[in-house]
Amino acid sequence: MTLKLFAMAASLRQASFNKKLLTVAVGMARAAGAEVDHADFREFDMPLYDADLQASSGLPKGAVELIRRTALADGLLIASPEYNYSLPGTLKNAIDWVSRSRPVPTRGKSALLMAASNGRYGGIRGLWQLRIPLEGIGVFVYPDMFALSEAGTAFTEDGSLKDPVVAERLRGLIGRYLEAGAALARLGKGD
Amino acid sequence: MTLKLFAMAASLRQASFNKKLLTVAVGMARAAGAEVDHADFREFDMPLYDADLQASSGLPKGAVELIRRTALADGLLIASPEYNYSLPGTLKNAIDWVSRSRPVPTRGKSALLMAASNGRYGGIRGLWQLRIPLEGIGVFVYPDMFALSEAGTAFTEDGSLKDPVVAERLRGLIGRYLEAGAALARLGKGD
Amino acid sequence: MTLKLFAMAASLRQASFNKKLLTVAVGMARAAGAEVDHADFREFDMPLYDADLQASSGLPKGAVELIRRTALADGLLIASPEYNYSLPGTLKNAIDWVSRSRPVPTRGKSALLMAASNGRYGGIRGLWQLRIPLEGIGVFVYPDMFALSEAGTAFTEDGSLKDPVVAERLRGLIGRYLEAGAALARLGKGD
Amino acid sequence: MTLKLFAMAASLRQASFNKKLLTVAVGMARAAGAEVDHADFREFDMPLYDADLQASSGLPKGAVELIRRTALADGLLIASPEYNYSLPGTLKNAIDWVSRSRPVPTRGKSALLMAASNGRYGGIRGLWQLRIPLEGIGVFVYPDMFALSEAGTAFTEDGSLKDPVVAERLRGLIGRYLEAGAALARLGKGD
Repeated sequence: MTLKLFAMAASLRQASFNKKLLTVAVGMARAAGAEVDHADFREFDMPLYDADLQASSGLPKGAVELIRRTALADGLLIASPEYNYSLPGTLKNAIDWVSRSRPVPTRGKSALLMAASNGRYGGIRGLWQLRIPLEGIGVFVYPDMFALSEAGTAFTEDGSLKDPVVAERLRGLIGRYLEAGAALARLGKGD
Repeated sequence: MTLKLFAMAASLRQASFNKKLLTVAVGMARAAGAEVDHADFREFDMPLYDADLQASSGLPKGAVELIRRTALADGLLIASPEYNYSLPGTLKNAIDWVSRSRPVPTRGKSALLMAASNGRYGGIRGLWQLRIPLEGIGVFVYPDMFALSEAGTAFTEDGSLKDPVVAERLRGLIGRYLEAGAALARLGKGD
Repeated sequence: MTLKLFAMAASLRQASFNKKLLTVAVGMARAAGAEVDHADFREFDMPLYDADLQASSGLPKGAVELIRRTALADGLLIASPEYNYSLPGTLKNAIDWVSRSRPVPTRGKSALLMAASNGRYGGIRGLWQLRIPLEGIGVFVYPDMFALSEAGTAFTEDGSLKDPVVAERLRGLIGRYLEAGAALARLGKGD
Repeated sequence: MTLKLFAMAASLRQASFNKKLLTVAVGMARAAGAEVDHADFREFDMPLYDADLQASSGLPKGAVELIRRTALADGLLIASPEYNYSLPGTLKNAIDWVSRSRPVPTRGKSALLMAASNGRYGGIRGLWQLRIPLEGIGVFVYPDMFALSEAGTAFTEDGSLKDPVVAERLRGLIGRYLEAGAALARLGKGD
């Protein structure tokens, strides 16, 4: 069974470290046999969540597209910056819209979480806060997570991770996640 | 010393339970001697946080206004719904923009957090997640919080809380918060 | 494949609501085909964690037994009270000792978390805090959790759940967890 | 007004980095005019929390002593290791016992939290989890916290912090905390 992943970095910034990290991870996941829909957060333009807006106009186009794309996947690869010791409001806003869909497209999917930052903590505190709403909407968030600190100097010019030990750690994590994700994906298919 | 509060419900919905709860709380705070700027979240229209947008255009108008209004206050009264076991993306997005201001206008301010929901938990789980970014940007979040469960039947037609025990609990909490808020506010003024 | 579960209520109190809830859950898990080691927290008597004690005397007997029993299982059924908005110190202390074992016996296991309390929240806030150290030591904590509120009046004299809707909700959750647990358990066995 | 602090490192280990960090902090607090009861966690020997034990024998001697000592203080200086991404079970167990005292001796006190670890994160994730039960029992936890990473090489032989920038950061934080702590302490004394 080929695992289908939806991959997105939760940053709107062009030169985002999380986009770079996600690109590395997507390459590793593909090399390990996964089929990856590598999305850009900008594809899913949506307003701030407003229940009145939903009541009058339904889910916005960007949310509908995000729901459609996540529904097609078995699992999620998410790279997210940490803002103010928590997940970005932008990503939480997307989760809030997606969670309004019936059925909730994320239920029963797995996810692997990553973060990159130019500081010492690599965004790890934000990932612990990101787990909560994801688990709340039924996602199996892989226990281990990946945080890349000092991201400003972590990549080569061609976008690889400079430190082979770090790269190997990410590759190993992705490999283990893919196995678990495949096991859980079979479930949803009556396998 | 008169404590100046900035009060806002973190919901864009017109008929929001959190707006109703905040209105009750604002009345109680004023009756206890506080000066309250009772704001509407809709006054602070702002886009999703985007570092590139900030780099090219600076802070958006709605964020600038929110920064100005919170900077004028000694403390914050916030009523926030819980979305997906966490704070709303909309509120987190506002915090993310505000935190980009220098100086950060919330440092050293106090805050009292409330939530209302039509369920059993009254939004309390969201408030615990809301504490994190607020404390992260230097806010003294009052230890006790207020969660109103079954909010759909909690208010009279004129917007008061039906249950006098619940109303008294909120009034007592606001009173205790105002004392602590005043003590902390004197600090910032070299008193 | 028969899923092997290790089940424990994280309370030392004889008349613990969490013990009662766990007993119901164990019955349901067995009825659904799982093999359950229904343990009592008192079987694993251990001191407060002390790195010097570990250095001089190794892991204490109670911890060694807990490690042995969890290592035999594919998954964990845990019912835990909430103390002070978090997990009990007693349970965290057991996790701290177990995490010192090499290999860590919980890595790759799954877990289903439950709580019971006589209040309105059913202990749910404690479970969200319990997820963190469990996920930290490599456990796949099932996304959905079960919180039994007003536990003082929730059980019949023979220990069943009075409310058939609540019982059915727990049974359904256990069934879904067992499927996911089995999928993940096969992984660890090279299946 | 002289602020009275109760200071404790939540580690039983003799050579604990957190004990070293606390000693530095206690010296700085005293130099800034605070009166500090510098306690050792081993003074408060207590069993694992057990409601049946409390019902039959009352609070254990170590808990009674911890309650007495914290009740005498205006604020708490706590240095705590991080175990498994959360606070130590030992510290949580002490909080669980203390919270059973009536009145709860910690209500209305302030606290400053610190952590030291030999890793990159300095124990900061544990402190975020420690905030929750402390705030739950009514403590004003100072928004800013201090995490000392790479603690194994951070101290001189005589126990000072090697890096003057780090020492100054801690000194500044303690100074700001003492001001806030004093403001809040006056409250409790009808000042």
